[in-house]
Amino acid sequence: MKIAVLGTGTVGRTLAAGLAAAGHEVTVGTRNVATTLSRTAGDPMGNPPFAEWRRQHQGIGVESLAEAAAGAQMVVNALRGAGALAGLEAAGEGNLSGKVLVDVADPLDFSHGMPPSLTVSNTDSLGEQIQRRFPGTRVVKALNTVNAGLMVDPGGLHGGDHTVFVSGDDATAKAQVVALLESLGWTDIIDLGDITTARGTEMYLALWVRLFGVLDTPAFSIKVVR
Amino acid sequence: MKIAVLGTGTVGRTLAAGLAAAGHEVTVGTRNVATTLSRTAGDPMGNPPFAEWRRQHQGIGVESLAEAAAGAQMVVNALRGAGALAGLEAAGEGNLSGKVLVDVADPLDFSHGMPPSLTVSNTDSLGEQIQRRFPGTRVVKALNTVNAGLMVDPGGLHGGDHTVFVSGDDATAKAQVVALLESLGWTDIIDLGDITTARGTEMYLALWVRLFGVLDTPAFSIKVVR
Repeated sequence: MKIAVLGTGTVGRTLAAGLAAAGHEVTVGTRNVATTLSRTAGDPMGNPPFAEWRRQHQGIGVESLAEAAAGAQMVVNALRGAGALAGLEAAGEGNLSGKVLVDVADPLDFSHGMPPSLTVSNTDSLGEQIQRRFPGTRVVKALNTVNAGLMVDPGGLHGGDHTVFVSGDDATAKAQVVALLESLGWTDIIDLGDITTARGTEMYLALWVRLFGVLDTPAFSIKVVR
Repeated sequence: MKIAVLGTGTVGRTLAAGLAAAGHEVTVGTRNVATTLSRTAGDPMGNPPFAEWRRQHQGIGVESLAEAAAGAQMVVNALRGAGALAGLEAAGEGNLSGKVLVDVADPLDFSHGMPPSLTVSNTDSLGEQIQRRFPGTRVVKALNTVNAGLMVDPGGLHGGDHTVFVSGDDATAKAQVVALLESLGWTDIIDLGDITTARGTEMYLALWVRLFGVLDTPAFSIKVVR
């Protein structure tokens, strides 16, 4: 499948590489290709410059957000939560229309210090905001409960025996995302319901950030025991 | 240990019975003892009248909120989240002072329909509200991530291999609560940190209520896989 991964940070890079390794034709979308490729310094998260990562993943295309979205069958929102709506605007409503958008972003708000709070929660969610803004796109919230490494390699933790969730209004779109998740090695996938259930997985982040604080690793997940 | 369980609903009854079975001297606290004992109809959750439950648990005392708190070494807040602060006011700041208060309540807001949202979240929590209002009490948030049955019988699900959390400012108080949890059969107990980390477990309820919707049972929990 032709997949556009929007975002060049840790999540975007890791998802792009993981999806390419799983056999998909992947293009990374970024606001300005020339600017992104010209950076010579690493990012604040300790990642090397994008161009260096790109040299190690030459099968993965790099295009503008709009070009990447236009050419893809499925789009992954791996933009930072705070910039997601603006980035998707740049990708273009027409380029996203009719497509499945896998929203893996969390609306983390770092402006009040650590650990982050959420920019939207309780009676709304980022997933819903995106679905409302792009009604012709079929938004499926998924993978936002684990770090980038586990998103594409769930088997790397406890043999993959932990849970991932999907939320979305369109059953066919969710089935496509479930198949994608299975191709990455996920085995325990819970369909929570419509896109309003994204509130559940996004608000779980309030627990995630505190577990990250005490576990000293982001490579953890939860198993729903039932 | 002499424990007061404040609240006569499902959570209060189940905790009182479970703690009594574990060998503690338990008193249930209620706003008006005569009123509570005189009810002849079951409650909206399908529970029998309190007096009927009481006949089956004659070793458990029933007193006013203030009397129960005054006579206890440890107090458990099993009041509904929406009524918790008012109930604790009735218990009396002096009667709670210096004591460990185990707060198992979640600030669920049913006023906007189902599933419930939260009356407080993101930048505050019920646990913090209680700690601020009763600064002389040592509040420990715990057990609020599972239903009443699992609170006192974690071993009844998957051999007890799932996780419970504690949050609180006082290390000694948390150690006492951890010991209490261990006496109930909990084995995987994560100390999240100070009382602000109650935001994490309370906001997890947004995921819990949606899992309840799709799993068709409240008898589930999460295991933090790491």
